[in-house]
Amino acid sequence: MTVVERETQDETRVPESRLQRWEALAEWPLAACAAAFLALFSVKVLGQPQGLNKHIIHGLLFTLYLPFVVDYVARLTLAEQRARWFFRHLLDLVVVVLPLMGPLLLLRLVALVGALQRAIGDAIRGRVVAYTAFSAVLLVYAASLAVLQVERPASGANITSFGDAVWWSVTTITTVGYGDLYPVTVLGRIVAALLMIGGISMVGAITATIASWIVQRVSAEDSAQQAATVAHIESLQAEVARLADLVAAQLDTRSR
Amino acid sequence: MTVVERETQDETRVPESRLQRWEALAEWPLAACAAAFLALFSVKVLGQPQGLNKHIIHGLLFTLYLPFVVDYVARLTLAEQRARWFFRHLLDLVVVVLPLMGPLLLLRLVALVGALQRAIGDAIRGRVVAYTAFSAVLLVYAASLAVLQVERPASGANITSFGDAVWWSVTTITTVGYGDLYPVTVLGRIVAALLMIGGISMVGAITATIASWIVQRVSAEDSAQQAATVAHIESLQAEVARLADLVAAQLDTRSR
Amino acid sequence: MTVVERETQDETRVPESRLQRWEALAEWPLAACAAAFLALFSVKVLGQPQGLNKHIIHGLLFTLYLPFVVDYVARLTLAEQRARWFFRHLLDLVVVVLPLMGPLLLLRLVALVGALQRAIGDAIRGRVVAYTAFSAVLLVYAASLAVLQVERPASGANITSFGDAVWWSVTTITTVGYGDLYPVTVLGRIVAALLMIGGISMVGAITATIASWIVQRVSAEDSAQQAATVAHIESLQAEVARLADLVAAQLDTRSR
Amino acid sequence: MTVVERETQDETRVPESRLQRWEALAEWPLAACAAAFLALFSVKVLGQPQGLNKHIIHGLLFTLYLPFVVDYVARLTLAEQRARWFFRHLLDLVVVVLPLMGPLLLLRLVALVGALQRAIGDAIRGRVVAYTAFSAVLLVYAASLAVLQVERPASGANITSFGDAVWWSVTTITTVGYGDLYPVTVLGRIVAALLMIGGISMVGAITATIASWIVQRVSAEDSAQQAATVAHIESLQAEVARLADLVAAQLDTRSR
Repeated sequence: MTVVERETQDETRVPESRLQRWEALAEWPLAACAAAFLALFSVKVLGQPQGLNKHIIHGLLFTLYLPFVVDYVARLTLAEQRARWFFRHLLDLVVVVLPLMGPLLLLRLVALVGALQRAIGDAIRGRVVAYTAFSAVLLVYAASLAVLQVERPASGANITSFGDAVWWSVTTITTVGYGDLYPVTVLGRIVAALLMIGGISMVGAITATIASWIVQRVSAEDSAQQAATVAHIESLQAEVARLADLVAAQLDTRSR
Repeated sequence: MTVVERETQDETRVPESRLQRWEALAEWPLAACAAAFLALFSVKVLGQPQGLNKHIIHGLLFTLYLPFVVDYVARLTLAEQRARWFFRHLLDLVVVVLPLMGPLLLLRLVALVGALQRAIGDAIRGRVVAYTAFSAVLLVYAASLAVLQVERPASGANITSFGDAVWWSVTTITTVGYGDLYPVTVLGRIVAALLMIGGISMVGAITATIASWIVQRVSAEDSAQQAATVAHIESLQAEVARLADLVAAQLDTRSR
Repeated sequence: MTVVERETQDETRVPESRLQRWEALAEWPLAACAAAFLALFSVKVLGQPQGLNKHIIHGLLFTLYLPFVVDYVARLTLAEQRARWFFRHLLDLVVVVLPLMGPLLLLRLVALVGALQRAIGDAIRGRVVAYTAFSAVLLVYAASLAVLQVERPASGANITSFGDAVWWSVTTITTVGYGDLYPVTVLGRIVAALLMIGGISMVGAITATIASWIVQRVSAEDSAQQAATVAHIESLQAEVARLADLVAAQLDTRSR
Repeated sequence: MTVVERETQDETRVPESRLQRWEALAEWPLAACAAAFLALFSVKVLGQPQGLNKHIIHGLLFTLYLPFVVDYVARLTLAEQRARWFFRHLLDLVVVVLPLMGPLLLLRLVALVGALQRAIGDAIRGRVVAYTAFSAVLLVYAASLAVLQVERPASGANITSFGDAVWWSVTTITTVGYGDLYPVTVLGRIVAALLMIGGISMVGAITATIASWIVQRVSAEDSAQQAATVAHIESLQAEVARLADLVAAQLDTRSR
């Protein structure tokens, strides 16, 4: 159905629910593609294959990239208010268009993290931490490959080995930024910018988790100052109900 | 009326409401001026026009700057407690006085962001994120132009192309600060300082959004620990009301 | 009285209230001393007076420093549990002992900020922001003077002018840290460390303010999800009271 | 018992409670070992003993390291769902395996901090701050020793004295990262990465503490907007109870 949708870009409003169904449907397949893409790209960057192998890998990488274009178009088509959706998903557009520039295809992995993030709808703090850690590791690894791929050939580049790339990624995502290593190419700097945004979100998630933990601890400390909970209201409700029965009893006694 | 106000700097107390009316009135026109100013300044910095064009652009830039001076004076005049208002709006003064130093005029764009920030009085998290992103992009672009304008002619400057300026702005607003590029002039450093403050606020907004999201999620998880909501109180109120009717019924039955 | 206290370091428990009375008493005088000290130190560092003037200024600086030693000893003496107090105020000890190393005397200004912080016991967000900004400006200025004073004479130092010192302080307090300028002496690095701690607290305060603002906005948005407030409970209480009157009315009607 | 457990890696489910009992039992002994290890390692790094002393110290360090291996194996064995526990404690594995690489043994001290963190289950903000400060100081000291130990012999290293190492640690944990000093060896960079993570958590804890303080202050300010507390509910409950008595009284009067 979505294929038809995609071909006939008619302006007829499509119920939101269909977009959601599509997203639920496409989520994990896309995540799988992103993961496979990361694996292949690792081979490409670290193994630096030559001749035929190189072409095979490029072909596979392109094949793994197509689904994301399909997904983007499908979601844009299914969106109820296309204009609104378009502006709310500019990042998705960037990620779909930029990949043609090669290593940035890796940024598709942000989709994987995104999927995981969505998967923790009913998250407890523990999970937030877990997913934050996972996203950080993934981002560092993906960014290291991407930056190495674009910097290695550049003249005057100082990120020339995978070890250096990882070290640079860590200093960047933590916003420490020693400056002993830094990208010198435009693509490398775009990767860096996305990594920094990831870093800031990561720091935010960690801080937020600690904050919610402290807020709870502090309020739990002094029970008089503790916020009234549903449990309290319910106990009160029970008391009122008991009172109602008492009054009802009166009516009975008199009616006799 | 505000013009009269502005001319006669009399000490008579002006009701707060009039200041607010003025601000509501001036908000969007000023934002428009700031946007137009940014566009023109972009032409000046990136196009580096010569001869007549240069003078025309300077003239237009100055014309677009005047409204902000007018606005500042008007607000100061309309303020109920001028002294208090003056100290609470020192940044506005800086922004109105500094522009005479040229590129810093760009900082007026903070006004645009400010207007947007005020526009989200009833913001949901999504909007906070949207405006944060918008402010960040705007700040990076404006600061890049400003720093390029002041650094390019300076001797020993290392920010000499627009690409470099943008890269420097990104590393600065994220507080990564590699140090591969940095301003060497006083004006450039003032731009940098304002950019850093913007960056810190940006990080704060992101963290805060995640925090409020987590706090809500955590409390929603364990309904017994969930904070009592207005909804709960209302259901309880309904029960009490039902009880009141029951008692009222008794009075009727007896009165018969 | 406190003088006597200070001389006779007897182990008799002193009621907490007396410590608090002393602190309330000493707060503003100490703040005044710190301010005067900052002014004088500015003259010393920026004016670089020679000969007699130099000695006069040193004398005055020392005189302004004594009160802080007195204050520290007094508070330690008046503290109910001296050991506990001692470990909880290690920073105060550092600030009282280190000043003998000269420029670090400036760090006493942290006391001024501390006083202000305490003064906002009933703070609204606006005040938090105001005091954060004030503390930041004060810290940057004080640290700039201190670092300039200790770095200028050092060989291989790169912070040699007041402008550079301020620029370095700003990049440090915002944790950007380009690394174009950095202290090379031990004293300069201690100043830097204290400035970084100040910066982290500043960032924390800004983030926290935004967070509490968002949390309130979000909960205010959906009144059904809004946390139950005292106002709600009171309205409910009124209803229950009305019900009580109704029941009381029954008793009257029957007793007739 | 745990020894037996460790030897017979049988798949029989062990009640969670036994794991907890073990952790409670092992907590402080392990902390003591970590502290002793830090002291000895300080001697090794700062004293640089030669000949026999060197071998003695190495022996002692190894002896102090064994308990952590035992602890890890024991906990893995006692864990109810081993797989889940394994993935949730990957960091512990790293810390137990990496130490064989020498200086990283120091990272075991994270265990000490961890123990303290757990010890503040019923923490008030003050304690959070105290433990944050303690953790920071400990991390800086431990990381300084570790990085000095691995960098000193490296060619092209710029962290060659303890003073430099401490200064580097401070600029790193605060995420300032001037870049005047930075590790060049793989081990040094691993230490740095762990230090950065510590720094981010530290910043998070500080921000969170301030946030919870502000949230409380703000809500306390306007009692109408103040969140309903258990105290309020209880007062309401009392009123309802009083009403119930009133109704009960009616029943009595009639039954007469």
